[in-house]
Amino acid sequence: MNYSMIRYILCSVLGFEGLFLLLPALVGAIYGEKEGLVYLAVAAASLLLGMLGRIKKPKSSVFYSREGFSAVSLSWIVLSLVGAVPLRLTGEFPSYVDALFETISGFTTTGASVLSSVEELTHATAFWRCFTHWIGGMGVLVFIMAILPLSGSSSLHLMRAESPGPSVGKLVPKIRSTAMILYGIYLLITLSEMVALKIAGMSVFESVTLTFSTAGTGGFGLVNTSIASYTLAVQIIITVFMLLCSINFNVYYLFLIRRPKDALLNEEVRYFLIIVFTSAALITVSIHGQYKSVFYAFHEALFQVASVVSTTGFATADFNLWPEFAKMILVGLMFIGACAGSTGGGFKVSRLMIVFRAVKNEIQSVTHPRSVQKVRMDGRRVPDNVVKSALCYMAGYFLILLISILLLSLNGYDMTTNVTAVIATFNNVGPGLNMVGPTGNFGAFNIFSKFVLMFDMLIGRLELFPMLVLFAPGMWRLPARRADRKELGLDI
Amino acid sequence: MNYSMIRYILCSVLGFEGLFLLLPALVGAIYGEKEGLVYLAVAAASLLLGMLGRIKKPKSSVFYSREGFSAVSLSWIVLSLVGAVPLRLTGEFPSYVDALFETISGFTTTGASVLSSVEELTHATAFWRCFTHWIGGMGVLVFIMAILPLSGSSSLHLMRAESPGPSVGKLVPKIRSTAMILYGIYLLITLSEMVALKIAGMSVFESVTLTFSTAGTGGFGLVNTSIASYTLAVQIIITVFMLLCSINFNVYYLFLIRRPKDALLNEEVRYFLIIVFTSAALITVSIHGQYKSVFYAFHEALFQVASVVSTTGFATADFNLWPEFAKMILVGLMFIGACAGSTGGGFKVSRLMIVFRAVKNEIQSVTHPRSVQKVRMDGRRVPDNVVKSALCYMAGYFLILLISILLLSLNGYDMTTNVTAVIATFNNVGPGLNMVGPTGNFGAFNIFSKFVLMFDMLIGRLELFPMLVLFAPGMWRLPARRADRKELGLDI
Repeated sequence: MNYSMIRYILCSVLGFEGLFLLLPALVGAIYGEKEGLVYLAVAAASLLLGMLGRIKKPKSSVFYSREGFSAVSLSWIVLSLVGAVPLRLTGEFPSYVDALFETISGFTTTGASVLSSVEELTHATAFWRCFTHWIGGMGVLVFIMAILPLSGSSSLHLMRAESPGPSVGKLVPKIRSTAMILYGIYLLITLSEMVALKIAGMSVFESVTLTFSTAGTGGFGLVNTSIASYTLAVQIIITVFMLLCSINFNVYYLFLIRRPKDALLNEEVRYFLIIVFTSAALITVSIHGQYKSVFYAFHEALFQVASVVSTTGFATADFNLWPEFAKMILVGLMFIGACAGSTGGGFKVSRLMIVFRAVKNEIQSVTHPRSVQKVRMDGRRVPDNVVKSALCYMAGYFLILLISILLLSLNGYDMTTNVTAVIATFNNVGPGLNMVGPTGNFGAFNIFSKFVLMFDMLIGRLELFPMLVLFAPGMWRLPARRADRKELGLDI
Repeated sequence: MNYSMIRYILCSVLGFEGLFLLLPALVGAIYGEKEGLVYLAVAAASLLLGMLGRIKKPKSSVFYSREGFSAVSLSWIVLSLVGAVPLRLTGEFPSYVDALFETISGFTTTGASVLSSVEELTHATAFWRCFTHWIGGMGVLVFIMAILPLSGSSSLHLMRAESPGPSVGKLVPKIRSTAMILYGIYLLITLSEMVALKIAGMSVFESVTLTFSTAGTGGFGLVNTSIASYTLAVQIIITVFMLLCSINFNVYYLFLIRRPKDALLNEEVRYFLIIVFTSAALITVSIHGQYKSVFYAFHEALFQVASVVSTTGFATADFNLWPEFAKMILVGLMFIGACAGSTGGGFKVSRLMIVFRAVKNEIQSVTHPRSVQKVRMDGRRVPDNVVKSALCYMAGYFLILLISILLLSLNGYDMTTNVTAVIATFNNVGPGLNMVGPTGNFGAFNIFSKFVLMFDMLIGRLELFPMLVLFAPGMWRLPARRADRKELGLDI
């Protein structure tokens, strides 16, 4: 294990977090809040630590998937540990654990809050909460890669570990250029939404923060009623951008390089849209009696569907009060989640398609035992190891889900609360049902439960393996040289 | 598709069901119930139909897995459709759908009832309900194979489709001998329990019927309080036999042929026992405050654990009133289920072990990308196709589970009821939580929900693929000859 390289990456993350923290400090200064100074102090400390740790360059540039996966998961842990400090120091959160929960919820774009009221927060803190969504949405290491030059192999392994989806799609041969293109598209979407919300009549502060929450598919808001109190125009703009941010960014790239045909052929996006509109239609049928018109019921249905499937977690309606069928569609959508290569979480549509087709092939192997069926996507064969990996992902996903529900049940709350709390955090959605419904919060859970849910948020955002690798037997004991020989197949 | 062979098998099933139905007719005669005549009439009709359909021998003996899987699933459907007739004709069930639900629940050894009171049933019907558990426990086609000579290839495919577990284990080279050995062991266990219960002070009728329910890991009882009103001795005997029937029968065979060392090396059984006693211990800690002594709490915990993990579904305590943690352990055990090659249902311990090890290998492939890891069980390598099949099984399992929960939510009951109703029927356990808890029943669901649950019971008992194959595209259109050519690899 190349520890010095991991140290170097972690310190780069610290340095960048220092830079990020300057923004809420600036917001504090603009609004004349003394809490801004707390952010400034933490920013300075973080920057200093990061710079000190980067003085000594790593001796060896040996970097394999092992290093990539552990660097990514440790980065996210460090990022959260530091990001939570100002929340506690300003006194706005009752304990460091609560602050940490909120920060992990922010970076992982979950949007689950421990606060019963967010309206008393300072502008600096409200800004920082939403900004963590934006940072976490596309991934902090992808961001660093877009800016800092890193060796090709290390950036590939970091990208693989941080990017969501069953396989990492390089848009262009160079990883660094891919990272820059992704962030370019991300910035473009972000700016478009800010402008749209400003035109719809919001203040600059509102449009900036809510755009961060939408673009990162996070879900933190500024008022206790989430998005319900805003105008219809704002709600529709947010619906559109939640969906835009759930779509595989590769598709936008194909549009940008004028290959719209290839973009439209993307099977994942097609199925994603079918899922969204079918679900919204079914929910409309289920809830239309509760609303003044079918159009309005459809609007509410589509907003909630977009919010849940994109794993944002905004709400304009308390879907806890909807019929059981409508609620279960939303719970089902929490599982499915967004497209791979988007800022959304969940199981990912393409991974579900691979699993579905693998099961279909397994059934067909009974009817035609001699014909070997292959899983195909977008007309191309999906490699066997990707199919196996997707199936193992599903298995690991449900095993962790069930264990988490069991651990949460120690807290004594009802089954619906426990099950949906785990589903909503694991898939980085935010609100669940009952106690953790759109009008509830996660504050009442005890510390043990909060740690279970924090783990679920991190492992869900990083898609299991980077976090699980940290616990793999022998992972940390392997001396670098022996590990390299193993890597090269000399020592098996 | 070789239709005439399938017709021949279905008619054999009908014939045997006619013979089975003579037993409740006899019970009716003993107790002087006129309902016995209904059983006699249905038995006669079933026997006659079966014999008529068997007059014309199949032209071709071509028989592949396609035929095997569809013959098995159709057999179970026919078995249930006919077995439900007397329940309705005696007037003891309010509708044929309810009678069918009860019969499917019986044959699949689920034990979920639509009745709010079972104490008013005639002896004939009470006997038939429990007897269906015994028939379904080891499998009706395995029974037929043990008695009727069938060609080697057809019996292999039938065995593969009906036997539970990730791979079919032939004990001896001849399938027919394997079937005879399995039923021999089954009979031995059944007789032992009958004798034990008789010695413990039960009447012959009680000991016979409750033995059928235990040995088949079914769960239908004779009184509304399930097993709670019986003596401690009876409860302990039933605990032991529920566990005995959840263990892979291969282990007993190894003991019988005096290879106890090999029997004790069985990893699945070892893990099964670890799961059982760890769960019972954890539940004891969780519930001991509700009981007069720790010993008694442990007894209640172990009974409920054995009942749920064996997927029997008997109860001595209303675990609906236990703490959330204890309830969630039981729900977790419903998923896991018994050992492969036993009469129990659920996901099966060995399949879970394969999935678990495949996920572990997937994680290790990150730390050591070049070393190809293989899944091992009992010291031997598990073939890749068995691993892939187990992973696909898990995927299909959760997909069907989620879809069933969604469909059940249309009925409007609460989430805990819907989720546990599906888990309890799909894994052939019986009782769930809330409305379908140990003191509740499935009568209140509407007809649509009942059909969803009936489908879940059948697909759960037959382990997905035989039922899913019925819906495979092109399955029924393929002409026999072309299908054969495909099978032989000539036409791909």
